[in-house]
Amino acid sequence: MKKLALVSTVTLFLGMNSFASSDMSLMNKAKDMGLKPIPKSSLEVLKLVDDPKNPITAEKVELGKKLYFEPRLSKSGLISCNTCHNLAMGGVDGVSAAIGHKWTANPHHLNSPTVYNSVLNKVQFWNGRSPHLEDQAQGPIQAGPEMAAPAELVVQRVISMPDYVSEFKNAYGSDVKIDFKLIADTIAVFERTLITPSRYDDFLNGDLSALTDAEKKGLGLFLDKGCASCHNDIGLGGTMQPFGVAAKYKFASLGDFTGDKNGMVKTPTLRNIEETAPYFHNGGIWKLSDAVKEMGSVQLGLNISDKDAADIVVFLKSLTGNKPDISYPILPTITDKTPKPDMK
Amino acid sequence: MKKLALVSTVTLFLGMNSFASSDMSLMNKAKDMGLKPIPKSSLEVLKLVDDPKNPITAEKVELGKKLYFEPRLSKSGLISCNTCHNLAMGGVDGVSAAIGHKWTANPHHLNSPTVYNSVLNKVQFWNGRSPHLEDQAQGPIQAGPEMAAPAELVVQRVISMPDYVSEFKNAYGSDVKIDFKLIADTIAVFERTLITPSRYDDFLNGDLSALTDAEKKGLGLFLDKGCASCHNDIGLGGTMQPFGVAAKYKFASLGDFTGDKNGMVKTPTLRNIEETAPYFHNGGIWKLSDAVKEMGSVQLGLNISDKDAADIVVFLKSLTGNKPDISYPILPTITDKTPKPDMK
Repeated sequence: MKKLALVSTVTLFLGMNSFASSDMSLMNKAKDMGLKPIPKSSLEVLKLVDDPKNPITAEKVELGKKLYFEPRLSKSGLISCNTCHNLAMGGVDGVSAAIGHKWTANPHHLNSPTVYNSVLNKVQFWNGRSPHLEDQAQGPIQAGPEMAAPAELVVQRVISMPDYVSEFKNAYGSDVKIDFKLIADTIAVFERTLITPSRYDDFLNGDLSALTDAEKKGLGLFLDKGCASCHNDIGLGGTMQPFGVAAKYKFASLGDFTGDKNGMVKTPTLRNIEETAPYFHNGGIWKLSDAVKEMGSVQLGLNISDKDAADIVVFLKSLTGNKPDISYPILPTITDKTPKPDMK
Repeated sequence: MKKLALVSTVTLFLGMNSFASSDMSLMNKAKDMGLKPIPKSSLEVLKLVDDPKNPITAEKVELGKKLYFEPRLSKSGLISCNTCHNLAMGGVDGVSAAIGHKWTANPHHLNSPTVYNSVLNKVQFWNGRSPHLEDQAQGPIQAGPEMAAPAELVVQRVISMPDYVSEFKNAYGSDVKIDFKLIADTIAVFERTLITPSRYDDFLNGDLSALTDAEKKGLGLFLDKGCASCHNDIGLGGTMQPFGVAAKYKFASLGDFTGDKNGMVKTPTLRNIEETAPYFHNGGIWKLSDAVKEMGSVQLGLNISDKDAADIVVFLKSLTGNKPDISYPILPTITDKTPKPDMK
């Protein structure tokens, strides 16, 4: 009896050890292939997302949140950043091509990328034309088919509301000059805080039990198939990559988008991918397993089986992260000086 | 010295007394003319807003909040209840006529009324065609120029998302049948909680120092001019009233709206009125003092001076209430069964 107990214990110990060791190899393999976790320590996260040129403060984040939810930044007074990058729905709008002012679809049939973890992207926009969120935020506000508001109108709207003026003073000092750039910069400060750590990060941070066996199997396949050659680093995406490497992209006919001047396209983050259908620059595919298979054939020249795609999807769902708590803001009240909404 | 102190004390005492007594008369006059406060006790508030046929519970309120912010209840997947009744902006959209599916303006050029305190209205919609919020909530979801979603589509979208199904079970029991009526009813449960007590209520509840002297002066004028003949009860509005009693309404030409079959129109609540411009059924006036003067001439046959209108506006601003804290929801994720958005 005693001997038997000893044998069991040894077996159990060896079993655990071997289990832990295969998990450890998986974790190390993932890191070797360029995957990195969101850091565990909040100080490290802050260092990761902060911009020393416009450091994150509680006052700027609160003001930036208001501006993010502010439909009066648009010409019509009806469309906010949150309309297309809805924080309730994975940071997206859930439609294939963004719809903006006067119900205009994006002219290149481009899909709204998620705002969550967008600070981790090396560049912004599908064609990577913007280097950071501060610059990006200026685009959709002014774009005709999106919020359609000239910069001057945006500034007039904001400075017409005394509560905004006092919040800007509070955030930047009493001699603040509220211009369009500062409004966009402040929105970006809020967006920088929209980081969503998940169990996947716990795993890469050393908690080897944070992922289920099925998720680990999916991660192994994800690495073996070569997905991490584009979907890597902390964002699992966010860099410019060649487009349609191995085969023609089936859905290219949906739009005339051709990427940047070298034909490169920003790889979307895979974080919260379960919540951000439809997929690809044109929102051409709704089913995540179909998207996995399509990327296999188009980018990697692989025929990924239904079974393998399903297993990879199990892993991808572990990338659904914890969203920051957002208390819905009460926005400032307009005055007689506030420029009126314009539907035209 | 002692005598002087005594005299001062008596004077002070008499002064306070006379001050309190004029405030007390103002409070009593307001009550005599039909104004009533939101009760102080939260149990009384609950009794006021609850519907015994579908009692308020925490689970229903949380689910109702999600459905209120849920754009996938609309045909396009882009428009939620909150789009036109934005809780960040006094419960309205801030445009003269509501804009809905395919950027369609309300065909009668009707303005979106505030959802805050709407439970206090005796009837819903400008023409009072709906007896309560449960009934009202069914309208805009289905209306072509608003959310444009057939009831069947709404149900299919909701039941396609397992997290919604489990929240309905949690709220109503495991044998719940999720139909369109129950979805609207649940939204209404959330809306019933959107009560915004203000300093005005404190005053009517007996705290005579809750309003400033200027606000009390404005309240006195409000009563003397006869505003409370329509804007009365707890909601300061919310009943059907004759329309254009003393003179033709200047802005009627903006639309073809004629009220109910007797030409009666729902009096809007004055709570949070500062935040809900533009005013009237057609959003025809932006400036609150202009609205006061227009109502004076159209409804009361009075020429209200600029000075009096400004004083009344000071009182009206005291009706801006404390909004409930709303944490922005994380909405359920779609599945392969979820009907796709339709922009057409």
